Amino acid sequence: MTTPWRRRYAKRTQQMMSSIIREILKITQQPDVISFAGGLPAPESFPVAEIARAPQHILETTGTRSLQYSPTEGYLPLRKLIVEKMARFGVTASEDNILITTGSQQALDLIGKVLIDPGDVILCEAPTYLGALQAWMAYEAQYVTVPTDADGMQVDFVEAILKKRKIKFIYALPNFQNPGGTTISGARREKLVALADRYNVPIIEDDPYAELRFEGEHIPPLLALDEKRQQLKDPDCEHFDCGNVIYTSTFSKTLAPGLRLGWIVAPREVTFKLVQAKQGADLHSSTFDQYVAYEVMSPEGFMANHVGKIQKMYKERRDAMLAAMEKFFPAGVQWTRPQGGLFLWVTLPVGINATAILPEAVMDKVAFVPGAPFFPPTIEARGKTSKKKLPAGHNTMRLNFSNASVEEINLGIERLGGVIAKAIAAQKIRIRRKRKK
Amino acid sequence: MTTPWRRRYAKRTQQMMSSIIREILKITQQPDVISFAGGLPAPESFPVAEIARAPQHILETTGTRSLQYSPTEGYLPLRKLIVEKMARFGVTASEDNILITTGSQQALDLIGKVLIDPGDVILCEAPTYLGALQAWMAYEAQYVTVPTDADGMQVDFVEAILKKRKIKFIYALPNFQNPGGTTISGARREKLVALADRYNVPIIEDDPYAELRFEGEHIPPLLALDEKRQQLKDPDCEHFDCGNVIYTSTFSKTLAPGLRLGWIVAPREVTFKLVQAKQGADLHSSTFDQYVAYEVMSPEGFMANHVGKIQKMYKERRDAMLAAMEKFFPAGVQWTRPQGGLFLWVTLPVGINATAILPEAVMDKVAFVPGAPFFPPTIEARGKTSKKKLPAGHNTMRLNFSNASVEEINLGIERLGGVIAKAIAAQKIRIRRKRKK
Repeated sequence: MTTPWRRRYAKRTQQMMSSIIREILKITQQPDVISFAGGLPAPESFPVAEIARAPQHILETTGTRSLQYSPTEGYLPLRKLIVEKMARFGVTASEDNILITTGSQQALDLIGKVLIDPGDVILCEAPTYLGALQAWMAYEAQYVTVPTDADGMQVDFVEAILKKRKIKFIYALPNFQNPGGTTISGARREKLVALADRYNVPIIEDDPYAELRFEGEHIPPLLALDEKRQQLKDPDCEHFDCGNVIYTSTFSKTLAPGLRLGWIVAPREVTFKLVQAKQGADLHSSTFDQYVAYEVMSPEGFMANHVGKIQKMYKERRDAMLAAMEKFFPAGVQWTRPQGGLFLWVTLPVGINATAILPEAVMDKVAFVPGAPFFPPTIEARGKTSKKKLPAGHNTMRLNFSNASVEEINLGIERLGGVIAKAIAAQKIRIRRKRKK
Repeated sequence: MTTPWRRRYAKRTQQMMSSIIREILKITQQPDVISFAGGLPAPESFPVAEIARAPQHILETTGTRSLQYSPTEGYLPLRKLIVEKMARFGVTASEDNILITTGSQQALDLIGKVLIDPGDVILCEAPTYLGALQAWMAYEAQYVTVPTDADGMQVDFVEAILKKRKIKFIYALPNFQNPGGTTISGARREKLVALADRYNVPIIEDDPYAELRFEGEHIPPLLALDEKRQQLKDPDCEHFDCGNVIYTSTFSKTLAPGLRLGWIVAPREVTFKLVQAKQGADLHSSTFDQYVAYEVMSPEGFMANHVGKIQKMYKERRDAMLAAMEKFFPAGVQWTRPQGGLFLWVTLPVGINATAILPEAVMDKVAFVPGAPFFPPTIEARGKTSKKKLPAGHNTMRLNFSNASVEEINLGIERLGGVIAKAIAAQKIRIRRKRKK
């Protein structure tokens, strides 16, 4: 059916696409499929009793304020709590640097709205976070990418790009990257911050999983490294006003995603612009949820203890997944060993198309997300795609280990190992036949 | 201080401005100022006990689902409840036509994102809702306006504009318009829907106050009139797929604004595009707030009773404001008599600049919002503004009657009457002096 609406959409709308992950999730949400496809935190980790208790107490002690319109910047006590949290990461911010957002997805949207002109080129990792690509599609961004390895973004490739092209900003996921599970090493972070500063290109640091490190040493965020660098250059600089990094994170992984609360840390001037953009976008994030989050998180020691439990749970599950992969995955398959977060990344032999084997996996009652969509279409590749050639990342997949029990992980990885083994065997037969011809 | 960020903002960001109302609110939030400046619902009207009780019950009966990620479209039972609400307005929708938004401000943002290309011309009322102008500034919209009178938008002016120009959409606030307090009559609604259909121009209907009518007869929304018209043209048309109207409303005025829950009703195809835009904007609105809102609103008869109480409260306050204005406002001042909603509109004698007298009013401990910002800069007026001439609506102000007690309204209007009387007296002296020269 044709409707007049097709001709009414804005140019940017024609580029919009539904998140492939959300579409895959719909297919895989059958009751007996073990799904590693989602990105859901473990619901067993939600502080249900505390959240259930909070509203009664809030409404008794603060009256109706938690139900009324409230400042765009966010609930001041919650912003102060974030200032303290950032201080533990080595960042000296004030509440004037903090904007509460409707999840960190909104942070990405607002950053795009404030910074991206159509055609602007963003430098990002390949693979990178799909939600950012989706947010910035609306602003008609273009991409150049640098590959990742076990130490995250391969920063050695960055300078050549910065020399060659005008880059609007660098988009980096420092810790346990979604989808790769990789972490940018301390040395690479120092180098990236120095390069960005030298070439006067800002960095957007997307850091939802920082607190979910269950192994290894904490590495300071790019924001903290940049702050030190800027203060050496100008000791009077406060509030990041000379800062080169916009940082975003979320309470979705440490508290509960259903509350839709994230935040941005930015130079005051940028925060002010982001506030203006947010006024037009949704006035402010839920007052009620901000009060609830603050009420739950403010008791001394609660969050340290709570996050400790999540880390323990996710470590067990990651360990189970790594062990099961050792046992059940055929030779020639590789994977990352994340020290935190929710995801790991599997690389199949070249030529095995993860998208093609997904239907078979679902029939065998296990699901994953194919890796190809996490590779943005790059300027370099434009016009060069051939139908015959398999796309970048065709032989990769993202597995989520936070939202299945150890038993489910064992069973699911066994099933997935079987599906992959069949695909490899089929490939060998195809190659043999080709050679005979 | 100059920072490199100034040169980094997108073109659209340079147009962004902070809401003048939110800036004025900051000035007027001194404890002893009686403020008619805000747009806050009466907090006494919030169903506090019900909202306090809801989370415990939700978490006991639905487990952790209210805290987890959830579908972009919104919580299905809440969408079904909206379908029933729309049916009472004469609209036959299904849940596929409903998208839950983070307040109706987000609805305006998403509609702008999906429809507006830079330079697109929107036809709206003058005055019109400031939040829409703020949302659509980011998409670089332009405006042509038609004036309003006691029967709302003067639809007679619309056809000449549609003949002359390509209009992207018509933006209409049918009931107790913010800021004017005016309602579009039934006859004008019929005519507007017919014109839009004939010229193939869609309508965005922004209807936050429909349920807050405390006087007079309900008038069907533009959406219902358009649905009837389209079904006569094509009886097989369902789900508004042939519809020409996108409708938005909110729970902010009938439940609580702090929950940030609004909705859109649109043809299925448009809903699908809006869902894609919302995925990139904030994934979904707060799951928790959606469950709480549904829990509070779903008991049979609760909302009818609750909204009845709000209507009674707001009618008393409007009556008090109208009576006080009769008593305390000097001759030559006019005002609207809204049959519902939260606002009324005052017109001072031409030449009395409401913006100029605001500081005096605040000194006398009463506040209002000057009317000029509610008049969008129009294409026609571009380049014609002279510094000497006072802008459109310079002699108007918006008064909010929902968020002050009857006593405060009496005292505040008495104070405001004094400020206006002084301004009129000063104007007379100025005119006399001019004549003498």
